[in-house]
Amino acid sequence: METVDPLKVCIAQLKRFPGIGERTATRLVYWLLRQGSEVATEIGHALIALPQSMTRCSRCGDTSSNDPCNMCLDSRRESGMICVVERPQDVMAIEAVGEFRGRYHVLGGAIAPLDGVGPDQLHIRALLERIEPEQVVEVLIATDPDVEGDATALYLAKLLKPLEVKVTRLAHGISVGTEIEYADRSSVARAIENRREL
Amino acid sequence: METVDPLKVCIAQLKRFPGIGERTATRLVYWLLRQGSEVATEIGHALIALPQSMTRCSRCGDTSSNDPCNMCLDSRRESGMICVVERPQDVMAIEAVGEFRGRYHVLGGAIAPLDGVGPDQLHIRALLERIEPEQVVEVLIATDPDVEGDATALYLAKLLKPLEVKVTRLAHGISVGTEIEYADRSSVARAIENRREL
Repeated sequence: METVDPLKVCIAQLKRFPGIGERTATRLVYWLLRQGSEVATEIGHALIALPQSMTRCSRCGDTSSNDPCNMCLDSRRESGMICVVERPQDVMAIEAVGEFRGRYHVLGGAIAPLDGVGPDQLHIRALLERIEPEQVVEVLIATDPDVEGDATALYLAKLLKPLEVKVTRLAHGISVGTEIEYADRSSVARAIENRREL
Repeated sequence: METVDPLKVCIAQLKRFPGIGERTATRLVYWLLRQGSEVATEIGHALIALPQSMTRCSRCGDTSSNDPCNMCLDSRRESGMICVVERPQDVMAIEAVGEFRGRYHVLGGAIAPLDGVGPDQLHIRALLERIEPEQVVEVLIATDPDVEGDATALYLAKLLKPLEVKVTRLAHGISVGTEIEYADRSSVARAIENRREL
């Protein structure tokens, strides 16, 4: 009589996470067994609750537990400035720096014709609709520095310019702390292209 | 009004796993959000069910969903031979090789006086009680090749010898595929110590 082994079931479930293979999943499962029921229940419930309690802010497109999200409602943020990113985790990354004081707009991806992602699949119309009511004076485009991110930035710039908004883009170049000798080619190319007068 | 952010709660919970830090947890959480409710629920329930459905086999000490475990009840396994390991995951590792056909015994650790682990904290008495009823002729000790594992192996050998059981230990030496030039010192030392006549 072969019954389903809860250990193997749990390993199989953890392996669904990206970057977690058989070995890591096994290690995590045995760790969990040593912790006991309470820890497993707390982690399990947090996972189950996550998608149920999260929604998408209809204004900025960020994932949030309420709509509009806290960031859109926060009156302490500069309302004249919007930072456009591809993914919700980009918001977290920029927030972690603490330099940007405006609001965000999450596109949900970048224009990628080969993957069937056109402007209509992205949260772009909502961005245009925010310009007038929020009296936006500058849109800072923070899409990825790759072909899709560049195409999306150019597309957005073309749409936004007629609305008399200043459109800027994050600077790309040699990352801080990298010696020129070891910098990758495309970063050096960007650094030369975007050189500043001293 | 600051409410608890389910995203941050979930990241905090995943960070409890060993080897999973802020960055990985964030990546997993956003991946989970893209998968939606069903995947999160399946993974979550598997985690919650795990410790509840697992127990310890009173005979061999392995984690199992039933007591005695399937391995102890499996009549196709050689009953005269027991492989002694420190942890349940060691059973999995040896089983994955498919070379060993006997049964296992999980100590639940190794003798480590500095950490307060003496023979009484380990599943040793149950091992001695298996020798006669299971007509054990050989005990293969597969504790780790470190100070604690070595001490445990010697301790067990001293206990088992009077019971007229052959006591063997896993061979340690240069791992297969490693060139001598790059092998670590202690492996080379063990390889010389355990040299075989050709």
